[in-house]
Amino acid sequence: MIYHGDAYQYILQTPDILLEIFRKKEEILKDSIELVKKHKIDEIFLSGSGSSYNATLAAATFAKKKLGIRVTPVFPVELSEEITVFPQNSLVIGISQQGTSTAVIQALDKVRETEIPTISMTGEYDTEIVSHADANIYVECGYEDAGSTTKGYTATVLTLYLFLLEVAKNSEGDLKLKEEEMTVYEERIQKVILNLPKLLPICEKWAEKEAKKLRTCTDLIILTESNQKSLLLEEVLKISETSRFPVRGYEACEFIHGMYNAVTEQTEFLYLFSQSGSDSKEMQHLYEYYKGKNKQYAVNTQKENDDGLYAEFLQDSDFSTLEYTIPFQMLFVKASRERGIDLNIPKDPQFHHYMGSKIGQ
Amino acid sequence: MIYHGDAYQYILQTPDILLEIFRKKEEILKDSIELVKKHKIDEIFLSGSGSSYNATLAAATFAKKKLGIRVTPVFPVELSEEITVFPQNSLVIGISQQGTSTAVIQALDKVRETEIPTISMTGEYDTEIVSHADANIYVECGYEDAGSTTKGYTATVLTLYLFLLEVAKNSEGDLKLKEEEMTVYEERIQKVILNLPKLLPICEKWAEKEAKKLRTCTDLIILTESNQKSLLLEEVLKISETSRFPVRGYEACEFIHGMYNAVTEQTEFLYLFSQSGSDSKEMQHLYEYYKGKNKQYAVNTQKENDDGLYAEFLQDSDFSTLEYTIPFQMLFVKASRERGIDLNIPKDPQFHHYMGSKIGQ
Repeated sequence: MIYHGDAYQYILQTPDILLEIFRKKEEILKDSIELVKKHKIDEIFLSGSGSSYNATLAAATFAKKKLGIRVTPVFPVELSEEITVFPQNSLVIGISQQGTSTAVIQALDKVRETEIPTISMTGEYDTEIVSHADANIYVECGYEDAGSTTKGYTATVLTLYLFLLEVAKNSEGDLKLKEEEMTVYEERIQKVILNLPKLLPICEKWAEKEAKKLRTCTDLIILTESNQKSLLLEEVLKISETSRFPVRGYEACEFIHGMYNAVTEQTEFLYLFSQSGSDSKEMQHLYEYYKGKNKQYAVNTQKENDDGLYAEFLQDSDFSTLEYTIPFQMLFVKASRERGIDLNIPKDPQFHHYMGSKIGQ
Repeated sequence: MIYHGDAYQYILQTPDILLEIFRKKEEILKDSIELVKKHKIDEIFLSGSGSSYNATLAAATFAKKKLGIRVTPVFPVELSEEITVFPQNSLVIGISQQGTSTAVIQALDKVRETEIPTISMTGEYDTEIVSHADANIYVECGYEDAGSTTKGYTATVLTLYLFLLEVAKNSEGDLKLKEEEMTVYEERIQKVILNLPKLLPICEKWAEKEAKKLRTCTDLIILTESNQKSLLLEEVLKISETSRFPVRGYEACEFIHGMYNAVTEQTEFLYLFSQSGSDSKEMQHLYEYYKGKNKQYAVNTQKENDDGLYAEFLQDSDFSTLEYTIPFQMLFVKASRERGIDLNIPKDPQFHHYMGSKIGQ
């Protein structure tokens, strides 16, 4: 499939899209929360491929740590294989932004052979996936006519945060989120969204400059703290897909444990300093270690310097995925252009047809 | 730290080591099973870095699917961050083959501030980690004096299988593994181990030939079915560490979803056909798709051909990690030598000292 939209414009639209989702959250979640209210839910399984899967990681970390709700991301194929051993009182959400992922649809069908309730989540109205679940959540980001998703990822992350908060509010006993706690979370989310427009120009300037440096890169390693797994996987996927060269990504501690041996003179590093994980010290050590040895890029440095993006991120310990994603997305769209690639034309437009991996292709 | 042993000899010793562990299993697990018997256990968290983490993935998949025991792999830093929200009746096992990983030791210390019982697991006697847990399991593979673990990984996988079977035998109610089921599992494990010596010569011949082809590789993608995540991560780590160039690894379905865009003319592919996942069809499609376009390597082809390793693997649906690991390990040791690298000398012998990531370095 070939696309015709402008991925960069979709990034610029993101603050407005997120604000709109935030404001319309009750309407967006009505159908799914009605379903939730009918069931006792002890664990939620979130399933998707690519960016959809990556989005679930951000939501799962938040729900587990802050809401005490067990949320487990699974690939669709694992869902199909493991459904028979899922705990009682599970809920399964299958996510496909375009609504056409055969893997997710097949997995939902498998789940529906059991008693476990299912929710589909998609960015496009009336697509195939909607008829394969008990309820549906629309990711209201508008049609994304681009070969690589940007606003769809961010909107999915936000919608999942809001859904899980609502689930917590409707929980029984210890897990029930109190009205005043809910308000604090919602205020923090809103604050992050409202801060985004201010970040756009400085992120753009940084991405413009760094994309030029990435033009000749043949080997990139992205490093993050352990609590940024969602962004880590998402940026590895997106830079790989759109700039089309080998990109690897590691959490700082795992990189230190052994993978550092695979750094060559050609390796360039891209750091996300989120300042909220227990391994932020290790990130700083790595940055210092490779300084002068390898080309480096950095997002959210704590002071102004030549290598990095220094901007007024709110550094929210739970919701900062929504803000850090902006400079990364700008970087991959611009880097792709610098490298002469049209990200709207897949490497092989017949690939999904050959593999049978998307409906209608 | 610089090592002096011969990694290749350790691979050749693996069948004997595994058989010895299998025979001595009661003695090896005595201490830990005594601890298990004193507690009700609903979930087991397995934590380690690098190969130790990778080993836990094989064990977790088996325990979840076949024993109905919830086993969750976590990185040490996540363990530290998430321990406060662990479910009641958890058990934590911290694994460090050398016994000196500061991340694992610190994580165990955090767990011990709670009521949750802890077990350390290490390959070396009387190392630091042993004094940071309530019980200990020795991975009886003997000292591994090599810059990259081979027998340690395989022995850890086996020891975890045996431990989890023993836990299931000691469970109450529905989860209790019956004596006759236990016997069947043990017989299957033994059969896989006893089949290994026969595989060694043909794996060696294959690895010898393919290592020469890998001499000039600058970009390798390893593809497996979804149920081989343990081997997938392990081989990506090991080839990266020892051959020191960019190696990426994906499950077939995830690769198809988008990452395939990042394939270049230089990309070479290494397939593991385990024939037991629900995505084995996709693996075959990919192999056909890239034939003639990119250089390919394959383990466990179903017929004799020029590209792949065709050998009498037992293809056991649960325990085949123990057999497929052999040709991969032979390949990475030989490829490293072909590329003129001494895997016993880390890229920077002072790295762990600088990072403070291993005790005594």
